[in-house]
Amino acid sequence: MELSVILVEPKYAGNTGSVARVMKNFGFHTIILVNPAFSIDDDECRKFAMHAQDVLDDAEVVSCFDEVVEMVDYLAGTTSIESRDDRHHLRKAMTARTFAEEAGKLEGTVGVAFGREDYGLFNEEIKKCDVLVKIPTSDAYPSMNLSHAVCAVLYEMFASLHEPDEFILASGNERQKLYEFFDELLDVTRYPSFKKEKASILFRRIIGRAMLSKWEYHTFMGVLKRAIQASRYRKEE
Amino acid sequence: MELSVILVEPKYAGNTGSVARVMKNFGFHTIILVNPAFSIDDDECRKFAMHAQDVLDDAEVVSCFDEVVEMVDYLAGTTSIESRDDRHHLRKAMTARTFAEEAGKLEGTVGVAFGREDYGLFNEEIKKCDVLVKIPTSDAYPSMNLSHAVCAVLYEMFASLHEPDEFILASGNERQKLYEFFDELLDVTRYPSFKKEKASILFRRIIGRAMLSKWEYHTFMGVLKRAIQASRYRKEE
Repeated sequence: MELSVILVEPKYAGNTGSVARVMKNFGFHTIILVNPAFSIDDDECRKFAMHAQDVLDDAEVVSCFDEVVEMVDYLAGTTSIESRDDRHHLRKAMTARTFAEEAGKLEGTVGVAFGREDYGLFNEEIKKCDVLVKIPTSDAYPSMNLSHAVCAVLYEMFASLHEPDEFILASGNERQKLYEFFDELLDVTRYPSFKKEKASILFRRIIGRAMLSKWEYHTFMGVLKRAIQASRYRKEE
Repeated sequence: MELSVILVEPKYAGNTGSVARVMKNFGFHTIILVNPAFSIDDDECRKFAMHAQDVLDDAEVVSCFDEVVEMVDYLAGTTSIESRDDRHHLRKAMTARTFAEEAGKLEGTVGVAFGREDYGLFNEEIKKCDVLVKIPTSDAYPSMNLSHAVCAVLYEMFASLHEPDEFILASGNERQKLYEFFDELLDVTRYPSFKKEKASILFRRIIGRAMLSKWEYHTFMGVLKRAIQASRYRKEE
């Protein structure tokens, strides 16, 4: 799948520069501008693109939306306004997450179109899209900055295309074992019994909040085991 | 869980305004600025915040990072540079997705700290964080705009806190049934047999690409059934 970002009649050069930057952050390169209100070599545009000048250098500029429809195999439109009813075809949207997962399976070129800063996409344009994509937002203020909308969608596309080098959390069983060893340590160190329950709960709270990785778990267990053994040894003396 | 966004020594007022806007887009309100290079009433800051002036009005400004550590129950730092080794404690990060899922389970106040536009967070600051969070990016250009980094993390927080009004895709079985009915339609309409396979494949490709919702499936099946029945009826005439 080859992704193109399509900006339809963008008004502010700075936003387009920001879009170029976030595209490069997420490893995407192809941008198509439909009738922009500025030149691609505008100073603001270039400034906000930072180290993504190559994205702007290779940008394609076309004069109307219909040209874009011909340029990609599959076209998604984005929206923040959405019909709540699945039966209302025109505006029913899938979330960026669902779209990213599904689009990753497609072959050919996929275009994602973002509308004007003030108006979004027109209904006539949405009708020509194969699918409508929404970014879930607060009802109190759904209108996102253009480059933020692109950021959220590309973030999802990148996440679905690349399996992250994941931080592996310790399992519930492992945490349970840690709690047991901690309690055992309290016993072998003859921790005052009237304070034991409190200490035990406190330890569980701390570990619960710590989002322990597997490796951190193993290190910690090692420390506890040694402490238990050392304490036992002293008891036997 | 109550979330605070913490900007550490932000340099550009426009970025902080953009952060306020995207916070409101995702339903978050509390922002803490550590030693900003500008006043919260800076024109650029207010301009970029758009309809999120209330977020800026309620912003807290503190003079050093240590104050923030005292203000929240749980503190996450964000980074784009990351140690590949789980055993390297200081910089090992979990992804924004994992963090969002885990943080949603926490009680109390959670702070997410974003560093300087040019330097990020200092090691001394990261040491004081309970966890380190990374946004997966392209190795070619990992350095994101400050408000884009906030956007990606808050997008995840919002998605994990709110179950979206989901677009339900038609199942594989349902799509299969649709293909069978289409083939039947070709038969009953006496579609030229030498063109049948091609039409059948073409239909599968179109539907495969269409990301059909359940409701669209049912509507489409209804249309095909009626067409098959009508064609059968004509045959018997």
